[in-house]
Amino acid sequence: MDYRPHADDARFLLMEVLDAPAQLAALPAMADADPALMAQVLDEAGKFVGEVVAPLNAAGDATGCTFNAGGVATPPGFRDAYQAFWRAGWPALACAPQDGGQGLPWVLEGVLYEWLSAANHGWTMAPGLLHGAYECLKHHGSADLKQRYLAKIASGEWLATMCLTEPHAGSDLGLVRTRAVAQADGSYHLNGSKIFISGGEHDLTDNIIHLVLARLPDAPPGPKGLSLFLAPKVLPHDTHGGARNAVHCERIEEKMGLHGSPTCAMRFDGATGWLIGEPGRGLNAMFVMMNAARLHVALQGVGLLDAAWQKADAYARERTQMRVPGPRDAAKAADEIIGHPAIQRILDTERAWVDCARVLAYRTGLELDIARHHPDEKRRASAQRWCSLVTPVLKAACTEQAFHGASDCLQVFGGHGYIREWGIEQIVRDSRVAMIYEGTNEIQAIDLLVRKVLPDGGAALAALLLDLRHDLDAAVPEHAEVLRRLAELRYATTQLAHAAQADAQLPYWVAGDYLRAVALALLAWAATRIDAAAPRAAQPARWQRATQALRRWVMPEFSLRLGLIKDSADKAAMLAGQTAPAAPAATPANA
Amino acid sequence: MDYRPHADDARFLLMEVLDAPAQLAALPAMADADPALMAQVLDEAGKFVGEVVAPLNAAGDATGCTFNAGGVATPPGFRDAYQAFWRAGWPALACAPQDGGQGLPWVLEGVLYEWLSAANHGWTMAPGLLHGAYECLKHHGSADLKQRYLAKIASGEWLATMCLTEPHAGSDLGLVRTRAVAQADGSYHLNGSKIFISGGEHDLTDNIIHLVLARLPDAPPGPKGLSLFLAPKVLPHDTHGGARNAVHCERIEEKMGLHGSPTCAMRFDGATGWLIGEPGRGLNAMFVMMNAARLHVALQGVGLLDAAWQKADAYARERTQMRVPGPRDAAKAADEIIGHPAIQRILDTERAWVDCARVLAYRTGLELDIARHHPDEKRRASAQRWCSLVTPVLKAACTEQAFHGASDCLQVFGGHGYIREWGIEQIVRDSRVAMIYEGTNEIQAIDLLVRKVLPDGGAALAALLLDLRHDLDAAVPEHAEVLRRLAELRYATTQLAHAAQADAQLPYWVAGDYLRAVALALLAWAATRIDAAAPRAAQPARWQRATQALRRWVMPEFSLRLGLIKDSADKAAMLAGQTAPAAPAATPANA
Repeated sequence: MDYRPHADDARFLLMEVLDAPAQLAALPAMADADPALMAQVLDEAGKFVGEVVAPLNAAGDATGCTFNAGGVATPPGFRDAYQAFWRAGWPALACAPQDGGQGLPWVLEGVLYEWLSAANHGWTMAPGLLHGAYECLKHHGSADLKQRYLAKIASGEWLATMCLTEPHAGSDLGLVRTRAVAQADGSYHLNGSKIFISGGEHDLTDNIIHLVLARLPDAPPGPKGLSLFLAPKVLPHDTHGGARNAVHCERIEEKMGLHGSPTCAMRFDGATGWLIGEPGRGLNAMFVMMNAARLHVALQGVGLLDAAWQKADAYARERTQMRVPGPRDAAKAADEIIGHPAIQRILDTERAWVDCARVLAYRTGLELDIARHHPDEKRRASAQRWCSLVTPVLKAACTEQAFHGASDCLQVFGGHGYIREWGIEQIVRDSRVAMIYEGTNEIQAIDLLVRKVLPDGGAALAALLLDLRHDLDAAVPEHAEVLRRLAELRYATTQLAHAAQADAQLPYWVAGDYLRAVALALLAWAATRIDAAAPRAAQPARWQRATQALRRWVMPEFSLRLGLIKDSADKAAMLAGQTAPAAPAATPANA
Repeated sequence: MDYRPHADDARFLLMEVLDAPAQLAALPAMADADPALMAQVLDEAGKFVGEVVAPLNAAGDATGCTFNAGGVATPPGFRDAYQAFWRAGWPALACAPQDGGQGLPWVLEGVLYEWLSAANHGWTMAPGLLHGAYECLKHHGSADLKQRYLAKIASGEWLATMCLTEPHAGSDLGLVRTRAVAQADGSYHLNGSKIFISGGEHDLTDNIIHLVLARLPDAPPGPKGLSLFLAPKVLPHDTHGGARNAVHCERIEEKMGLHGSPTCAMRFDGATGWLIGEPGRGLNAMFVMMNAARLHVALQGVGLLDAAWQKADAYARERTQMRVPGPRDAAKAADEIIGHPAIQRILDTERAWVDCARVLAYRTGLELDIARHHPDEKRRASAQRWCSLVTPVLKAACTEQAFHGASDCLQVFGGHGYIREWGIEQIVRDSRVAMIYEGTNEIQAIDLLVRKVLPDGGAALAALLLDLRHDLDAAVPEHAEVLRRLAELRYATTQLAHAAQADAQLPYWVAGDYLRAVALALLAWAATRIDAAAPRAAQPARWQRATQALRRWVMPEFSLRLGLIKDSADKAAMLAGQTAPAAPAATPANA
């Protein structure tokens, strides 16, 4: 079965749970995005994804991309679907009207890409890279570069790449060696090798725009010596006669999954490029789009998990095997396996993750819109704080859950899950990469704890937790539990900041636990938001079942993570002869 | 890099930690297995595995098995390696001397197969099925069947299969529909379709002996209507002129991994077979080898995890990327990633799992030997109790850890882990199946809690925990912690037995948590055994680092699992208006 987007679920979460229309109404740039238009976009997006993109997924995995003499053929149907996609205007959904875009909220683009990834992760890699390139060029490109390339990238007529990684430089881009030498005409010649370049070569579009991280001759070592360049596959017609640039695809990688996306090793052999932004500010030019790109990956995780859940749920309703414990129909030889508690627990747990993670990811999408467009500087700042803190949490937690949850869904199929036929093992293989790219999940954890939370002693995090508390009422037992967890999280942050003074390595050992604890606290908050809106849903019980499952099966991990942090912090403090920071107040109201 | 067995590790665990020679000396049938012979067998096994089997692993995955007109070609080198394997006598290592075997302890066969699986899981599937067939035929076959087939199966000259699963009958074998009809000459004609038959067809041996679960015409529905039959691919020369039997391979499955092992769909088209054991006792005849078969799978998990660890450890020692936190060499641009806490934590955690799980699996292997051969009936019974309770725990916990731990090891490679070149993603794909076959991990959990622990109110489990306590000294802090956990486990068992009276479904919801809690308590006990022996190891610190990591990073999950059980039990008891069972005594000494 192919993935089927549920526009009604997205509408409920955006309109009822997150009150998106009211939030967006405060943004003059989004004045057109009324509820009716949003609903229409979601319906159309769901149709396109379900009818055009989803049916290509299994064949994309089985056939994969093929490399031949420097060229890459994508799987059957991929080019036609992509041409239909950009011609329908989907890539430009959230681009600025002056660049040919529709100027709709980012959050709608987020939902679109969640569905696309769920339907066909490999295919979606190609357009997925457009949006970072657009932001990067828009904010840092020269007028000439923008005039030549921005509209083509916005529309998706030409696809783009991010050429960062080299064989010896992955997480550590400061080690990049590709060289750029200035030419008399203002262009640069690029020389070097890049690996793991998604969409470095393909047959989806007539041109490919490479954004390349490279080093000028006089650049210092490390990240501050990196500059960013634009090097198209096909050079401009007016100045270069449309010549093929000296950018070569040398091979595509054999991967665990994601066979629909060519992962290219690229050689720049004196390729012509132009500087984007200032020399030595290459990483800076790229970081403009980092939150959006990481949120895209978080949404891939959510989408893939939903795809796995859809398959497992459908299978569990049809497959009969053994009797369920307790009262049962004596006339049947075996029951549908959805009646078995072990199976139901898997399905409930993954449904809970999808629903609650969507609340967080869509809210983060809205905060991205607010951070860009809100007229009030203070509101923009609080939105920026949300995005800065929550994005790495969602990137890591949602991609980890996609892989592990998809594996749990595979288990629902028994032996049938391990064979290709049912498509569930493809999701496990495809989803695994999302824990690695766009900053490994370990790097997300360090980004959160070491770079964002600890430097200000936890102040920004505390402000974010305070924001969450506004939605909670200590008189409601489920809310009181969330309030208690937010207080525990604050205290753990204080403990860590304190103990890190004695042991600078400590935060690096438990950063993963910390990120996970924040993720769980946020999910618990999201569950209360769903509960509050559920009475207005078409099927309240379906949503309530998910939030109950979150509390019962997912949330217990919160104490595990805080315990791991506390034990390590205690040990570090003890070794240093520190006294512990003041214990937290016992009641949630004082948290 | 290919997997390298470490015979010195196995020697340390068997000789120093588990005192295997003294245990085996009590078994008259194992009188020849002195420490010198055991050490020699381990050395030779390590050489064969490392030199002959391991180098075929990557190509076995890439080339895989191919199906052509009913025949199956195994990957290049597989047949030669298998022929060398059986001719060297490895399959018959633990078979009885009267069947042509060497009569060595089962535990050595266990270590051999752990290494084989680590080196080449796909190849190892073929001989891995011999041992169950041998036990089954030995204990239930007629004199004539044994005379014809037992020695060939013991030696491995002919391979064997287990034909159980059908499209609609996986975990629930009671639904099997394959029919057997008696013939005048005492044979049976078999008709039906079987799927997921590992090694159903191949080119490794000249004959394949199928053990087939089927139903006689007058058989009742359900599991009690099943009988077991032996149907060879090639019929006997003396009676049937060596004719090809009507057993056909219709296709091989496309799988997530394990490409070196053909997973066959088989059609029995009036195939000739002979009854093994009594009519209607087919499942019984197979269950004779269930503990050994499940322990084999647990050891596959241990081996695959060790293989993943070896790869990740080697990579982390070579790959340089970013600076480590804290004091460092200012002259270097980047540090070996093994210095990064996030990476070190993964490596330490998986090492801890491998070491402690080996202690448990090897001990279970010894208990299998004791259960079979000890002269004292009471000792045989306690060994049987250990195997009955611990085997499902290890099957589920070790295979789950193999998959998730291999995925964590993949993470050490960053993007390089996702591509085929390094071989780590193959381990993730290959290992996934072990969570499913030989009884899914969900079924192991139900087997443990619902079929084995609860029916006697937890008495057998309590006796096992009492056995473990003999090794522990409450004055040693690490031991006191284990004692506390054993007491908590006993109390949780009492709680569950109590609450299950109010809610019969309850154990099925938390069986997985219960199994996991037992696994962790056993691992913690195993760590104390390693600690006690470590001073006698060549590198005490290498073992101590692992047991410390177990306590720091693995054991916190124990409280999570008990909490999940307690919450569910409390809820069930509350709904039924029960009062709670008496709380456990606070001190470990009273546990």
